[in-house]
Amino acid sequence: MIQPRTLKGFRDYLPDLMIPREWMLEQARKVYRSYGFAPIDTPALEYADILLGKGGAETDKQLYRFTDHGGRDVALRFDLTVPFARFAAEHIATLGVPFKRYHMGPVWRGENTQRGRYREFWQCDFDTIGTTSNAADVETALVIHDLMTALGMERFEIRINNRLLLNGVLQQFGLSELAAAVLRTLDKLPKIGREATSVELVRSVGITSEQANKVLDLASTSGTNAEVLDRVEHDFGSQPQVAEGLARLRQLLDAAREAGIPERRLRIDLAICRGLDYYTGTIYETFLTDLPQIGSVCSGGRYDDLASLYTRQKLPGVGASLGLDRLLAALEELQLLTKVSTPAPVLVVQFSPDYIGRYQALARQLRADGIGVDVFPEPKKIGAQLQYAEKRGFRLAVIAGPDEFTQGVCKLKDLAQRAETTVEQRLIAAKVKQLLSN
Amino acid sequence: MIQPRTLKGFRDYLPDLMIPREWMLEQARKVYRSYGFAPIDTPALEYADILLGKGGAETDKQLYRFTDHGGRDVALRFDLTVPFARFAAEHIATLGVPFKRYHMGPVWRGENTQRGRYREFWQCDFDTIGTTSNAADVETALVIHDLMTALGMERFEIRINNRLLLNGVLQQFGLSELAAAVLRTLDKLPKIGREATSVELVRSVGITSEQANKVLDLASTSGTNAEVLDRVEHDFGSQPQVAEGLARLRQLLDAAREAGIPERRLRIDLAICRGLDYYTGTIYETFLTDLPQIGSVCSGGRYDDLASLYTRQKLPGVGASLGLDRLLAALEELQLLTKVSTPAPVLVVQFSPDYIGRYQALARQLRADGIGVDVFPEPKKIGAQLQYAEKRGFRLAVIAGPDEFTQGVCKLKDLAQRAETTVEQRLIAAKVKQLLSN
Repeated sequence: MIQPRTLKGFRDYLPDLMIPREWMLEQARKVYRSYGFAPIDTPALEYADILLGKGGAETDKQLYRFTDHGGRDVALRFDLTVPFARFAAEHIATLGVPFKRYHMGPVWRGENTQRGRYREFWQCDFDTIGTTSNAADVETALVIHDLMTALGMERFEIRINNRLLLNGVLQQFGLSELAAAVLRTLDKLPKIGREATSVELVRSVGITSEQANKVLDLASTSGTNAEVLDRVEHDFGSQPQVAEGLARLRQLLDAAREAGIPERRLRIDLAICRGLDYYTGTIYETFLTDLPQIGSVCSGGRYDDLASLYTRQKLPGVGASLGLDRLLAALEELQLLTKVSTPAPVLVVQFSPDYIGRYQALARQLRADGIGVDVFPEPKKIGAQLQYAEKRGFRLAVIAGPDEFTQGVCKLKDLAQRAETTVEQRLIAAKVKQLLSN
Repeated sequence: MIQPRTLKGFRDYLPDLMIPREWMLEQARKVYRSYGFAPIDTPALEYADILLGKGGAETDKQLYRFTDHGGRDVALRFDLTVPFARFAAEHIATLGVPFKRYHMGPVWRGENTQRGRYREFWQCDFDTIGTTSNAADVETALVIHDLMTALGMERFEIRINNRLLLNGVLQQFGLSELAAAVLRTLDKLPKIGREATSVELVRSVGITSEQANKVLDLASTSGTNAEVLDRVEHDFGSQPQVAEGLARLRQLLDAAREAGIPERRLRIDLAICRGLDYYTGTIYETFLTDLPQIGSVCSGGRYDDLASLYTRQKLPGVGASLGLDRLLAALEELQLLTKVSTPAPVLVVQFSPDYIGRYQALARQLRADGIGVDVFPEPKKIGAQLQYAEKRGFRLAVIAGPDEFTQGVCKLKDLAQRAETTVEQRLIAAKVKQLLSN
């Protein structure tokens, strides 16, 4: 006998976890589609050379890489961005620009397992490519906002920055060539604090401690959005990159307000810069007010060139990625998920096998009205069937035996209220709807 | 520069193919849920010993198998049944029986590529385990029926058999020990014809040509469902397994009729037996009347013991699997898919970047009403934007410039009818809905 087990860092999704996960995927899909992002899919497996060296040495080490039947060097994708770059290079002539896509699927990373982090997890990415227009940056913020509210989040904040500000300031400081290294280090500020970041900027990046202080002062600028932007304008507004970054951020805030996004949901935060060299413009991170410890749950930014490794055609764009499984694991750990094991609210109790056709006829009447109905497969004792129903989280039980079928009625039992009513079978859908809406 | 390319036997899904695929997945999900099947998910990667030897030597050869970072012998799942057996053995004590699950996800097989067959494809499985009740067999037929109609299929036939019939008859012929081999060969009858099947039954399985004829006569029994069953009853009804198989098939047909399934959709076909040794009772295959060449698009059956390799607990059950990507590839090849590249029907044309906040405000008004809206990111010429809209399959364009914003109106252009109307902005949702419903 083989011991049933999953690999370390992998997990099964049982219904009580899969039901909320499917709901979250459905919400994300709805929001993306509502903005006109079109779905795509790419293979889980790619040629290794497509994936190698795109996420840094750490990611290369974590690749699930092997030789396939045809002797090809292949690997499982570790994110959805690199496959999208390959995809765009291959198909953009067919697709045309601007092109807006979303992509939801599993990715694999053989990283050390931590609480709430798995080696297989779903990402939900959306991007607009083929345009440098700030309208796409504005829309990205709106999509993140609508995504979070569609996922039932109320207390969250989208932190926004623009790398043009930091790059412009670093240029003014004569640190242009070290900009990428400075930003990579600065990205750690929220995690390791000002002291440690300063030390690293001096020792590893090689800037002076005076320069490090100036950079850290800028990144730590606090106040209302207007105050922060005015302060940067006052100090560095004459630098052309800074001026452009400020104009784009201001347009983003104005447009978001006009579009109806509550102002408290968007915060300019000059410390937000993402670790990836890749980003060149607007930067987004999203934090849950009550779960800051899980980090950003939806992050992204603007880039100048998506697919430079695969094509000479320049593909600028902007997008973000929802860390769906990370968010789900956090909600699970914090016991914020309602545990239900059935996607159907109604159970039809089986009194006798003689009626299974009629039970299914009743059930299909309800299903045609969009109500999920499970028919219990065995004529067990009614009590045992009702126990099954309660344990799984059904809300209503339909009970009908010989008497009820003779009279053309059935009993409806509200499992939470423990109340029973009798209803004509032909009117069952309306009554069930009414009871479920209570 | 790295050449952007996918592995042989793998494919990208562009929006015009991914939109119908997502729609199909959504339909399947809806139908499964409407019957109370609960979603689960399992990892793409499993320990190789979990997967090896479960699908036969051919499947073992096709496994994507390798050694992971921790020196583990791992492989990508080749179907969803074996992972479900492992899952059930591991979790059934927590889940309880009966347990109804669906599982939709990609599987991988390194098989020789053929037209319309890929090395990565999605399966959509549903199963009821922990019960031998025929009510679950009845329901399986109903689910297949509702699945096909939800997928827009009108002309299809679910062919049904019960292995008890064939096994009973083979027992009567004294061929019990060869039953599995006979059924594996008989499964090829629709593909290779009576002559070749007979030859193989004699040469490979080792029964006499007289026995082969009897078996083939039985498998070829034609007539109405009642005629076929009556004929079997007349010839073999005294054999206990045959009697039980007949009773179960009759109850299935009666219950399906009572539940409202049109009689033409279910056909008793004694030649349908599936190649897998695994099945012990009811057998299902589903054929499209207009696409018989693609084979069965939804197949399954009843089994005595799902997880005997992983647990001593006996888990009988019944279920079926929808070959979603095979069906999709067939519809694509036959040009039966409507090619649309956007999931949103409405495009808001950008007249000037000054209005991007107001365009998004208009768009969010429509999105709140469930209407997908794309806002064009650049202030290109209106003509070019309308061309983009037509090419992608948008149905309506919203046009508003300074005059319209002053008057609080916008123009709605029906892209197919090439008709334009002006509407007050605050009434836009109702008007768009009306135009889209035409």
